[in-house]
Amino acid sequence: MRAFNFCAGPAALPETVLKQAQAELLDYKGGGASVMELSHRSSAFVEVAEEAEKDLRELLGISDQYAVLFLQGGASMQFSMVPLNLAKEGAKVDYICTGAWSQKAIKEARKFADVNVAASTEQSGFSGVPARSEWQLNEDSAYLHITPNETIHGVEFLDPIDVDPRTVLVADLSSTLLSRPLDVDRYGLIYAGAQKNIGPAGLTLVIVRKDLLGRSERTLPAMLDYAVHAKADSMYNTPPTYSWYLAGLVFKWIKKQGGLKAMAELNARKADKLYRAIDESALYRNPVEASARSWMNVPFILENTDLEASFLTQAEERGLLNLKGHRSVGGMRASLYNAVPEEAVDALIEFMREFEQHNS
Amino acid sequence: MRAFNFCAGPAALPETVLKQAQAELLDYKGGGASVMELSHRSSAFVEVAEEAEKDLRELLGISDQYAVLFLQGGASMQFSMVPLNLAKEGAKVDYICTGAWSQKAIKEARKFADVNVAASTEQSGFSGVPARSEWQLNEDSAYLHITPNETIHGVEFLDPIDVDPRTVLVADLSSTLLSRPLDVDRYGLIYAGAQKNIGPAGLTLVIVRKDLLGRSERTLPAMLDYAVHAKADSMYNTPPTYSWYLAGLVFKWIKKQGGLKAMAELNARKADKLYRAIDESALYRNPVEASARSWMNVPFILENTDLEASFLTQAEERGLLNLKGHRSVGGMRASLYNAVPEEAVDALIEFMREFEQHNS
Repeated sequence: MRAFNFCAGPAALPETVLKQAQAELLDYKGGGASVMELSHRSSAFVEVAEEAEKDLRELLGISDQYAVLFLQGGASMQFSMVPLNLAKEGAKVDYICTGAWSQKAIKEARKFADVNVAASTEQSGFSGVPARSEWQLNEDSAYLHITPNETIHGVEFLDPIDVDPRTVLVADLSSTLLSRPLDVDRYGLIYAGAQKNIGPAGLTLVIVRKDLLGRSERTLPAMLDYAVHAKADSMYNTPPTYSWYLAGLVFKWIKKQGGLKAMAELNARKADKLYRAIDESALYRNPVEASARSWMNVPFILENTDLEASFLTQAEERGLLNLKGHRSVGGMRASLYNAVPEEAVDALIEFMREFEQHNS
Repeated sequence: MRAFNFCAGPAALPETVLKQAQAELLDYKGGGASVMELSHRSSAFVEVAEEAEKDLRELLGISDQYAVLFLQGGASMQFSMVPLNLAKEGAKVDYICTGAWSQKAIKEARKFADVNVAASTEQSGFSGVPARSEWQLNEDSAYLHITPNETIHGVEFLDPIDVDPRTVLVADLSSTLLSRPLDVDRYGLIYAGAQKNIGPAGLTLVIVRKDLLGRSERTLPAMLDYAVHAKADSMYNTPPTYSWYLAGLVFKWIKKQGGLKAMAELNARKADKLYRAIDESALYRNPVEASARSWMNVPFILENTDLEASFLTQAEERGLLNLKGHRSVGGMRASLYNAVPEEAVDALIEFMREFEQHNS
């Protein structure tokens, strides 16, 4: 039996996607081999790859001005690739710090660029996002980096980001890409590890405006050079073919659900329900300012922390998995990515209410 | 029906491995979730990861002096990571050039180190390996890099490599690791992309002597630093969990076949048969010196190149897939990795004989 999986990542995948993958695991389309066993240069796989890119472009409305790259290494690799590709040696770059993932991106960028933290909510424990009026942007920064959703702290930026249109806006959208519509044209570069809303871990999407390719003029490892990957349609070397295929199945599943508008409605409903249940309870509490609450990751604490262990055990017994908060912040966390169905949220809320009744 | 797949990579996987993966795709060990949906920090996945490493250490006899890393990026990423991690700025490094993959490794290393090509068979079209007596090694090189098997040219070094034991020997074993026993202790660092004998594309194994970690003292992207990955047991960030799991299943399958000695016997038999059939024919020819012929990748040409297209079409009709040679060298190529059964080679030889009879 399939459980309800609230893992922050690697996260739940749509059951119909897994079933299709299962059905064709040993023999893809009657060709006598698994997708994993296909040469990345075979016509069968190239079709998989191209169709995935086409569907992604359609879902997000990505214009020809952008290259779409299917890479490896996760967001952590992007923390290095962004400054190495977009900033010349010694150049200034701006970062907004809104949680643990921003901090990691900043730490890595400092190795390769002159980082200006233009605004930070660290002092307030990352319980909100910094007001736009407080951002101290450099006029001559190579780019501005933001983390629109912080998976660990459950904080989210409200779209749109109000910056000069000439600013090269870079966003780590690992945990929100494809959860709602997005105006890609406002960004210079977007990246996302796959293991939340896209597919299995080991694949990373990068959407980059073509005029930014090669901008830093640095000598880079070939595998860290966006221009190399763009020129080779992400096949400079053997890509993670099976993950690419699974991402393609997920894109088709999203289209079938009605695209990103439909996902957004569903995700808003799921998050609203859960925050309401938390706010109405005396036992649970979400530490984030209402205006900055994440749709995707809902952290909450139990006012009586002694109850945490039994909360988790009982949840697991009911098939509600991975509700433990990140080890760096403690408490609980429910991640509500696209593939987490509304029934899962309903079941979680029901359990939370019962648990509160039994423990008050 | 499953076909016989001679692809050079991504290559055939053992059918029993694929069947097990299929059976547990939606629900791993009754936990209600797919392996792809497990947190990499969950006890279920950590067990998968640790068991894979344990089995690999057992198969290859890897001592505690070595770290075993499960990374992303393929051999191409290693082409950069090796010089960046093992050579200080401006340091000399030695490379032996025996084919297209050596050339790629050398090209990348030149960006970051002072490369001495100590021997090369480029002039003779990579039809053999350079005699040990001709190698012009630098005395003070940070390491010596070799490519014991060239996937495209079908050339293989005979083990053991005769060098001073103090030499830091680095080997790209992408296409031979696990195809036979290996004396790991003779190497400083070994790397291998998974998509030949290990698992699906998107996973890269690195086996590195611990005293070499941090040796270059360079400021590196965290994801390119072996020391970072070693310290975090390859979980500095989210690893490619599903590929890691599949590699673990492959390691167990190899153990069940009798380990690397049994694999070596099988692989020798497969290769010997095919080379004999080629040598005995008037139509087919292998361009590599007998002493340097690869066990894993058998390139061959048809003396009458007009017959190539019909050879490939007819082979495919018989369920013999991916026999086309690499686009850079042309001709045919049969890759005989561990998961290619002896029946596949028998079927190929039978077809080749029939094809020759009908076309002579």
